[in-house]
Amino acid sequence: MTSLAISGLIRPLLEPRLDSDLDVRWFMTPEEAIEAVDGAEIGWFDMNDQQAMAETLRAAKDLKWLNSIYAGLDFLPMDVLIERGITVTNGAGINAITIAEYAVMGMLTIAKGYREVVRAQERREWLLDSPGKRELAGSRALLLGYGAIGKLIKPRLEAFDVAVSVVRRSGGEGVLGPDEWRERLGEYDWVILAVPATPETEGLIGADEIAAMKADAVIVNIARGEVIDQPALVHALEKKAIAGAFLDVTTPEPLPEDHKLWALDNAHVTMHLSGRAQDKMFARSAERFLANLERYRRGEPVEPVFDPRLGY
Amino acid sequence: MTSLAISGLIRPLLEPRLDSDLDVRWFMTPEEAIEAVDGAEIGWFDMNDQQAMAETLRAAKDLKWLNSIYAGLDFLPMDVLIERGITVTNGAGINAITIAEYAVMGMLTIAKGYREVVRAQERREWLLDSPGKRELAGSRALLLGYGAIGKLIKPRLEAFDVAVSVVRRSGGEGVLGPDEWRERLGEYDWVILAVPATPETEGLIGADEIAAMKADAVIVNIARGEVIDQPALVHALEKKAIAGAFLDVTTPEPLPEDHKLWALDNAHVTMHLSGRAQDKMFARSAERFLANLERYRRGEPVEPVFDPRLGY
Repeated sequence: MTSLAISGLIRPLLEPRLDSDLDVRWFMTPEEAIEAVDGAEIGWFDMNDQQAMAETLRAAKDLKWLNSIYAGLDFLPMDVLIERGITVTNGAGINAITIAEYAVMGMLTIAKGYREVVRAQERREWLLDSPGKRELAGSRALLLGYGAIGKLIKPRLEAFDVAVSVVRRSGGEGVLGPDEWRERLGEYDWVILAVPATPETEGLIGADEIAAMKADAVIVNIARGEVIDQPALVHALEKKAIAGAFLDVTTPEPLPEDHKLWALDNAHVTMHLSGRAQDKMFARSAERFLANLERYRRGEPVEPVFDPRLGY
Repeated sequence: MTSLAISGLIRPLLEPRLDSDLDVRWFMTPEEAIEAVDGAEIGWFDMNDQQAMAETLRAAKDLKWLNSIYAGLDFLPMDVLIERGITVTNGAGINAITIAEYAVMGMLTIAKGYREVVRAQERREWLLDSPGKRELAGSRALLLGYGAIGKLIKPRLEAFDVAVSVVRRSGGEGVLGPDEWRERLGEYDWVILAVPATPETEGLIGADEIAAMKADAVIVNIARGEVIDQPALVHALEKKAIAGAFLDVTTPEPLPEDHKLWALDNAHVTMHLSGRAQDKMFARSAERFLANLERYRRGEPVEPVFDPRLGY
């Protein structure tokens, strides 16, 4: 009998739809999780406590397939996943829609100076001119990263008549390779970071890259804070060397109360909320797991597969 | 020799590109305008003072073609235009791009609760959950009005996987006619008003229409304040009978300082800024006028033509 260890939080969405010939162990606490994974072939044991989740993985000696609602799993011991040859499916794309929507919202609000409009309404002041006078139409965006989120951002921006240049590690037709984009940085109105969090993308945007951007360029970061050299960014924003930054992610998170980014008038801090701005994540994750479970039992490949060697 | 009376404000963009066989009279004041239009065949005399502009039109006895940067010309004496058979080209579509962008921005900011995020940044508070949890994807929008702006809104929303139903006076395939949409009001997450300002559209959305909407419906008005029965809207927002309203336009404008709309937490007031959130209006208007002038001199039709009988 196939054994599954699954967090009780997802039970209401899964239990009515699981075949009766499965041995499903639901758990609520980290201690119960350690027990539940003993002998389990399939695991879905997401926990807020990342340390407890890593320990549960270590205890899951018979695990063949690990599922997670998270896209970034860099907190798990990759060596364990590799040594035991565990297949990992992650949450890549589960909240990609809302993150893509959030990125476009950030661009529009900066283009139109919307934050100043919000403040004017609070003062009951009827502004006579728009604090922002940019149009997305006719502008150019550099989109770094073309995973689930990047693939949703591109057509949305193109509908606004934005010319989008994609940078992708693996290259491809009409796509800039990892070494081609730097010399063209000065061409773009928007630089959008949608790369995965890997050692390779850490500090991808540093002082040199920022200096190569146009004075009216805006950086949009919906990837990870570490992708940007944050002190260099703060310095550029203070000098107004670029027009602004829409930062869903920062280093660290939460941002300390005395951090300069909070108060810079060209820094827009959105507290890693982009992925949370939806209420369909659990339902979508359950649907995906059930579809994968059927494939798994038929011996077919599951998806999307997270590669612990690459980190995404 | 063809005579033109044109506001001096647009002179720098036009003068270098006008044929030398034209008699162009530039003016700066309303008094000069009255002189300039004497005997003029072509006029472009936009003024902030709408009364002065109407008087200039009355004085322009030989006018055959009137051009304007404005889309809405309801402040001009329609009877004069009709009696004298004056061809009118207006600014329809000149600022349509930025208005369409603004409407989508409004929807995204309400979906994600972005106004609360702006306020949290001011408090230096790292929010742990998103104040808004809606996705545009999978939602349904009723788009009332399918002129230059509506035609730009539709494809932008469709790129976000919004199902858009168009209501158009003239009907057409896949389009709801003027009597079909009311009974379907309860189906939509978004009701977008992009109709022209005519007697027919005044009070188009009244208490009955608002009552027929879903409790989580949002109204987006980028048309004219008069299109909505505003007291009925305020009442609905106070009761939270609908989720919100994004109001680029109000009655009156500016909104008095003590008006309830300023302080309602589900009313988003943007002070008729949507069309001003760009810096290309004069350049686009000049391009259009020059292209029309060529056509006019060749005896070809000019566009877009404003019909004083319809009011748009």
